[in-house]
Amino acid sequence: MATIGFIGLGNMGLPMAINLIKAGHEVRGFDLSAEQVKGLEAAGGSAAKSAADCVDSVEIVVTMLPAGPHVRSVYGESILGTVADGTLLIDCSTIDVASARDVAADAEKAGFDMVDAPVSGGTTGAEAGTLTFMVGGSETAFGRAKPFLEAMGKTIVLAGGSGNGQAAKICNNMMLAINMIGQCEAFAMAEKLGLDTAKLFAISSKSSGQSWAMTTYCPVPGLTDTAASNRDFKPGFTAAMMLKDLGLSQGAAEQVHALTPLGAEAMQLFRDYVDRGNGEIDFSGIINMIRGDA
Amino acid sequence: MATIGFIGLGNMGLPMAINLIKAGHEVRGFDLSAEQVKGLEAAGGSAAKSAADCVDSVEIVVTMLPAGPHVRSVYGESILGTVADGTLLIDCSTIDVASARDVAADAEKAGFDMVDAPVSGGTTGAEAGTLTFMVGGSETAFGRAKPFLEAMGKTIVLAGGSGNGQAAKICNNMMLAINMIGQCEAFAMAEKLGLDTAKLFAISSKSSGQSWAMTTYCPVPGLTDTAASNRDFKPGFTAAMMLKDLGLSQGAAEQVHALTPLGAEAMQLFRDYVDRGNGEIDFSGIINMIRGDA
Amino acid sequence: MATIGFIGLGNMGLPMAINLIKAGHEVRGFDLSAEQVKGLEAAGGSAAKSAADCVDSVEIVVTMLPAGPHVRSVYGESILGTVADGTLLIDCSTIDVASARDVAADAEKAGFDMVDAPVSGGTTGAEAGTLTFMVGGSETAFGRAKPFLEAMGKTIVLAGGSGNGQAAKICNNMMLAINMIGQCEAFAMAEKLGLDTAKLFAISSKSSGQSWAMTTYCPVPGLTDTAASNRDFKPGFTAAMMLKDLGLSQGAAEQVHALTPLGAEAMQLFRDYVDRGNGEIDFSGIINMIRGDA
Amino acid sequence: MATIGFIGLGNMGLPMAINLIKAGHEVRGFDLSAEQVKGLEAAGGSAAKSAADCVDSVEIVVTMLPAGPHVRSVYGESILGTVADGTLLIDCSTIDVASARDVAADAEKAGFDMVDAPVSGGTTGAEAGTLTFMVGGSETAFGRAKPFLEAMGKTIVLAGGSGNGQAAKICNNMMLAINMIGQCEAFAMAEKLGLDTAKLFAISSKSSGQSWAMTTYCPVPGLTDTAASNRDFKPGFTAAMMLKDLGLSQGAAEQVHALTPLGAEAMQLFRDYVDRGNGEIDFSGIINMIRGDA
Repeated sequence: MATIGFIGLGNMGLPMAINLIKAGHEVRGFDLSAEQVKGLEAAGGSAAKSAADCVDSVEIVVTMLPAGPHVRSVYGESILGTVADGTLLIDCSTIDVASARDVAADAEKAGFDMVDAPVSGGTTGAEAGTLTFMVGGSETAFGRAKPFLEAMGKTIVLAGGSGNGQAAKICNNMMLAINMIGQCEAFAMAEKLGLDTAKLFAISSKSSGQSWAMTTYCPVPGLTDTAASNRDFKPGFTAAMMLKDLGLSQGAAEQVHALTPLGAEAMQLFRDYVDRGNGEIDFSGIINMIRGDA
Repeated sequence: MATIGFIGLGNMGLPMAINLIKAGHEVRGFDLSAEQVKGLEAAGGSAAKSAADCVDSVEIVVTMLPAGPHVRSVYGESILGTVADGTLLIDCSTIDVASARDVAADAEKAGFDMVDAPVSGGTTGAEAGTLTFMVGGSETAFGRAKPFLEAMGKTIVLAGGSGNGQAAKICNNMMLAINMIGQCEAFAMAEKLGLDTAKLFAISSKSSGQSWAMTTYCPVPGLTDTAASNRDFKPGFTAAMMLKDLGLSQGAAEQVHALTPLGAEAMQLFRDYVDRGNGEIDFSGIINMIRGDA
Repeated sequence: MATIGFIGLGNMGLPMAINLIKAGHEVRGFDLSAEQVKGLEAAGGSAAKSAADCVDSVEIVVTMLPAGPHVRSVYGESILGTVADGTLLIDCSTIDVASARDVAADAEKAGFDMVDAPVSGGTTGAEAGTLTFMVGGSETAFGRAKPFLEAMGKTIVLAGGSGNGQAAKICNNMMLAINMIGQCEAFAMAEKLGLDTAKLFAISSKSSGQSWAMTTYCPVPGLTDTAASNRDFKPGFTAAMMLKDLGLSQGAAEQVHALTPLGAEAMQLFRDYVDRGNGEIDFSGIINMIRGDA
Repeated sequence: MATIGFIGLGNMGLPMAINLIKAGHEVRGFDLSAEQVKGLEAAGGSAAKSAADCVDSVEIVVTMLPAGPHVRSVYGESILGTVADGTLLIDCSTIDVASARDVAADAEKAGFDMVDAPVSGGTTGAEAGTLTFMVGGSETAFGRAKPFLEAMGKTIVLAGGSGNGQAAKICNNMMLAINMIGQCEAFAMAEKLGLDTAKLFAISSKSSGQSWAMTTYCPVPGLTDTAASNRDFKPGFTAAMMLKDLGLSQGAAEQVHALTPLGAEAMQLFRDYVDRGNGEIDFSGIINMIRGDA
């Protein structure tokens, strides 16, 4: 069993840290919110006074932070100069690819194994330990990180070198956003054309229009068991989270000059949807805006 | 076995008519191209002198025409006033929903059973008799048409009342176009980010970004057996055909005031791709334009 | 003074016909609405029993109809076979370019001078006789039509051969829609960035961001005297009228394969705005939707 | 006359610094390129060994740097801790609003007057001293900076508090990009519809479709004296510069949640145009891509 420093005990981070404790590890945690830290202590973890204190003399560091600048500053100021030789570094934050690669390069230069390992699966998955981790880093680093990621998730995939965990996540979620909106457009148009959406589902779910967004997560209720539309768009995966990921994908597209006309339009639509007060609604609820009802 | 009048013996119509002959029916055909009519005769059919002559004293009429105005004028001028009572009318053309409904209403008023039954599956499917028919019309008309459609196709689905065959087809193909472009954007971005597309495929094909456009028809070669990308984008389903269907879906959206921002942008992108000389390339070849190579 | 048959006495047509009466012409009118015809009689015109009756033995025919199919059918069924040799034909309807050209070709074949002469200026301009006419047709036809158009409008411009009046109008209005939305985006963004919109106006109205949409019709109230924003977006030019013209421009773009990504998106945005119940609001009111308030 | 430290002697910075020398000021310059520094010395300026050396004991600091991170690091590491009390700080870089405001806040906290003063007018304007400066900062700072800006430009406008120079520039240029593309769409469609672009110009330049992009900078040659289209799209204002400004405006839109569907699409189109090898072409050359020729 290992000693783990965990920085960032938010809605995702706290249940992830608790799953590490449940797996038998010793977890020392740090967060700016005292209440969240108490949650960790209640589950058998210990509280650090600062980020640097949190990672001092641990074997593994896990970070779960909101955005690239936080990861850059925590690694620059509190981790890389503090941790013991040989410490394994795991960043589970969903951040921009460039920051992920810069920080990983600094870590490598300082002699550390590091992976970027953003997650999908939401707070439900974090609590249940069923998250998916998309991992970027060396084979060695991945091999070392995998057992710990398995304590927090169910599917652990290596996407390639540093930053490729982030890249895989934003590519996947950009497709998801586009597929979902396209489907909302088609189903809302079907309604207006007098075509029964159950008929459209029956046809397209077995045809070339099929997508996960349809057959697992149809925005029209009653057609798929697992969809948020069945529970009045209680998330699942919030529109605000999707908007964040689309922002990251547009940022990456700008940096590498990738052409993403549908991705750019999808971001505008989710920004509109979120700004109309729907940030905490499941992202598939955007069908209501496409219908003209939100 | 029945006597069938078949109007429109183009690249799709001719092999469809031949499959009706193979199934034992007597087929009389008409087309403006003498050469296409000869093709029918070579397969055992007979030639009509005009559209009206073609449908005179037959039990079933099948039409396969380019667009709504053709269907309106052939039905108005040569079919409805000519055919015998009880003749079954099957329009396999892919046309606008409004024309399909107008013509069906005229047919019904004149006492005929009629279905709109647009197809998917391309010339390959037409020749192999493996087309999919999306059918709009009454249960009775569908029941009567089904055995004949089965002679030309493999999957026959009733989408609802008149026009809903057309509606289902354009809703499905609009989703397909959007899913395909979204996927091209994501895979082309992955290439620029240094993320191996095979890794992205491995992850997303089992995750929320999945779609038929990916798992059956991936625009990056080597990842799916069935994709046109494996054969240098030899169609399959041409970009020009996709552009036609997107035009029909935008027309329908305008008529019923459906909001289709991604559908509208998808049409612009396919118009651009087709106008750059790629009309006869498989529609998934649009990845090259998204990459900046077409 | 001339005898004029005027078909289509709607909100635009009636005041236009009345201005022809005021200019001393004898006007016989036809409309499906009896009430509108009474309005013409009250102003000194006479009522025809049918479209054909309206144009029988007149020197000039003026039509003001909703859309291409109406113009096609009225010309085909009631005008071209009815009117006397030498009758001048003026179509003031705003319709699709293809219909305008088809009807003009039929008229020319039948030996008539004809112009398409769509208007801008709204009902206010129709009443005040200050409309702008964008005219397509031969120099001869334009020369004959001009004096009559001057009785109804202030600016009469020849845009080229048949259909080019329509073409000029939709090209102009597509630019107007795009410029207006672009400006709404910039001014709404300025508000959120804490940049005083009066400052932005002061700078951009004299700089490269300037447009008529800004310096004559600014969607932020108080910056230009003439703008609808000063009178709570009372039209002016309604959002529904703009949506109609964008539909025509998208139709033309589809027919000639013109690339109009911003035009297509502008149509989606106006469709959204209109469908949210704002069809009779001035088109510049779309700034409220861009702000997230409509 | 004043002693001025000038950091950033690129294609814009060098001629600006030379104009300060011509106005009688003593200019000490720093740039990473030795050759550019020699250009300053040849014009009568002196060379600094480092950024800190450049601003040591001067009365005024002018910076002209590529992007926000450069401005942040130069101010943080070499300026704010080095310069004498009372030094006036002028940042002429075009950067993101957030960086401009953060650096200005740091400067103010340290007791300095500072303005952000991004320019428009290109290298031609920099050499001729005819630049436009859009300035953000206090009235006091603006008053102190104005005489020096006048030595480098012709039009100096105060847009409001810190960062508003940047905000005004990106709002203006986003409108310019949108107006230009909209116009390219309309003029290219006119060509395909057989409408003479000179006619369209004659009509729209005096009508509601007018914009600076048309009447001063028409992308069809021969219609406006001043347009880059007359000189084969030799810039002027390059497509790459426009793409940079659109990137900044999209970044600002994301930060403040402004809805910019046309701005987002305009950025995609300019990215496409630039990536096809047209970065150094005038931005109005995008008409060729809209026509399908680039």
